[in-house]
Amino acid sequence: MKTKLLIANSETNADMYYATRMLIPDEFVYLETEIGRKIYVSDLEFSRALQEAKVDEVLNIFSYPKKYKSALAWIIAENNVKEVVVPDYFPIKYADALRKMKVKIEIKSGAFFEERAVKQDDDIAHILATQKVNEKAMRAAIEVIKKSKIRKDNKLAYGSKILTSEFLKEFIEMEFVRGGCKSEDDIVSCGMNTSQPHNAGSGPIFAHQPIIIDIYPKSFKNRYYADMTRTVVKGKASPEIKKIYNTVLRGQKLAIENVKAGIEIRSLYGKVTDCFEKAGYKTELGSQSPEGFIHNLGHGVGLEIHERPFLGPKSEDSLQIGNVITIEPGLYYPGIGGVRIEDMVVVKEDGRDNLTKMPKVLEIK
Amino acid sequence: MKTKLLIANSETNADMYYATRMLIPDEFVYLETEIGRKIYVSDLEFSRALQEAKVDEVLNIFSYPKKYKSALAWIIAENNVKEVVVPDYFPIKYADALRKMKVKIEIKSGAFFEERAVKQDDDIAHILATQKVNEKAMRAAIEVIKKSKIRKDNKLAYGSKILTSEFLKEFIEMEFVRGGCKSEDDIVSCGMNTSQPHNAGSGPIFAHQPIIIDIYPKSFKNRYYADMTRTVVKGKASPEIKKIYNTVLRGQKLAIENVKAGIEIRSLYGKVTDCFEKAGYKTELGSQSPEGFIHNLGHGVGLEIHERPFLGPKSEDSLQIGNVITIEPGLYYPGIGGVRIEDMVVVKEDGRDNLTKMPKVLEIK
Repeated sequence: MKTKLLIANSETNADMYYATRMLIPDEFVYLETEIGRKIYVSDLEFSRALQEAKVDEVLNIFSYPKKYKSALAWIIAENNVKEVVVPDYFPIKYADALRKMKVKIEIKSGAFFEERAVKQDDDIAHILATQKVNEKAMRAAIEVIKKSKIRKDNKLAYGSKILTSEFLKEFIEMEFVRGGCKSEDDIVSCGMNTSQPHNAGSGPIFAHQPIIIDIYPKSFKNRYYADMTRTVVKGKASPEIKKIYNTVLRGQKLAIENVKAGIEIRSLYGKVTDCFEKAGYKTELGSQSPEGFIHNLGHGVGLEIHERPFLGPKSEDSLQIGNVITIEPGLYYPGIGGVRIEDMVVVKEDGRDNLTKMPKVLEIK
Repeated sequence: MKTKLLIANSETNADMYYATRMLIPDEFVYLETEIGRKIYVSDLEFSRALQEAKVDEVLNIFSYPKKYKSALAWIIAENNVKEVVVPDYFPIKYADALRKMKVKIEIKSGAFFEERAVKQDDDIAHILATQKVNEKAMRAAIEVIKKSKIRKDNKLAYGSKILTSEFLKEFIEMEFVRGGCKSEDDIVSCGMNTSQPHNAGSGPIFAHQPIIIDIYPKSFKNRYYADMTRTVVKGKASPEIKKIYNTVLRGQKLAIENVKAGIEIRSLYGKVTDCFEKAGYKTELGSQSPEGFIHNLGHGVGLEIHERPFLGPKSEDSLQIGNVITIEPGLYYPGIGGVRIEDMVVVKEDGRDNLTKMPKVLEIK
């Protein structure tokens, strides 16, 4: 086998966490050779790494003999490394240093650990546990919207206060913490803000306007994410939003029904765009005013919120057994608003399991 | 001026957020030339970027003419780029692609935006606001320990439950969310776990043992961090821990008193190790059992929890006016435990302002 090398922290770099199952906030070194998997960590992390890291050997990176110019030079010499495989995001400073030492670098495009995209039973159990917390938070947030009253100016009042995007995001985050999870960011957008898929939302929530709730906590125990989106309207949705909603829902259902091992991702994507175009919803891409279905159909979920496989229109990959992916079509039109509906499914040989149990209902009384 | 190039997301990459003040979870391109600062984003982010990004121009990365092989080739050609400055962590795949296009790459070692280490008044106000939330959470957590009763087995009982590290971390996280903040990870460790500086802690909290609480929330509004650590003992600290505590406190006081613009970081560090050694506390580094003062004296705090300047023993830098840094000496001995005390200070011309107001008390009744 080829020698693999990673240099990163394991808090923001999921490959490093995957390889070691240990959280280290600062950069360290992972080396995988025929002999085994080792890490090189600082004095600060050494004794903890001996206990926590799921590797064959832990070394103190500061223990290198003075005859070496750097820890990296020592690691390369000690392990007799002539050639290494590194991820395509490997830092240029280390790549150049290795090349200077005459180490040949093979850059692995795409997934560094391909097996990360193929979830095992325990990965799926972790994702499902996070998703349960996620659905609880989503239900609780929708309950708040239900309990709110519509004022004359169409703002919502929850108790004595104007209901805002900020309040709902804090409320959701509290539910996450209660469930042993937290999130990086949440989206609770309303009205015209929904026409921008990643607009996080701010200010009052209005009746009769689309509200997009897209939430994605991670467990602080095992660091697995879950992801879901619901679009709702408090009161009455306009005929236009209703039609968009029903179209997105139909597109999502069609995509989910077609998920199975072996299907080409771009063909799955094409089914959704065909469905949208038949309903009269055009997509404008690569322009000064992108609109329609302007993002991927979904993405893998695991130790990262966005990971492989990516369900883009030009993907050359097919789905594999064990992929955990979101199916989240959306339609966005400036001046009208946006709708997105997102479930998380596991790819099976002949179909899929939907990990998202929560019903999809547009209008809330 | 030289052309600067970044390719990264702005959720985990603070340089990218600093340059654009806009959160984008997927990779995009930032180019800074004499003419101005522009970003290239996907269809998905385009209209939001027009509103949110603090740059001179926003372009759709998918709008490149077909005659170009890639978006990157288009960006280089359109901007007539012959040479770029990139950060030392720049991904090898893009570096190699640029070199293939005959673009000369200058790798900037250290800080990509040096001005990030020199905080302006509004940066300091943001950090202080986060620190207020942090101190509130710390006080509340210590109050829980105060209210807990010591059982016969020396475990603490809070109400009818055994007080655990997990409970305290969840409790702290709730306080953060209530204050508009959240944290990546918190440390609440007890007993022998405290001898590992980054041991996050787990299980019951015991009386008469050191408890290290190291917490570092970030505001979800402006993304500025704060950082603090207190070490406490519920009940009676052993003479050994008391002596370690007083030594660390003396070392911290000495370091803080010596903080001012122009002081060499390694000399500041040296004062602390001298103080520790005089008290009989040796440090063992680069070995199979590191112990003593086994980490940096502190680090910059801002849009990242660990950012420049890093207060390492071998640093060749001096402190500058406007640095916001932690001063957090610690001593750690396997079999005995650890103590760390951490404040956050702003470097001034003739001294420093301590942003951390909370008193330091070892024993809690």
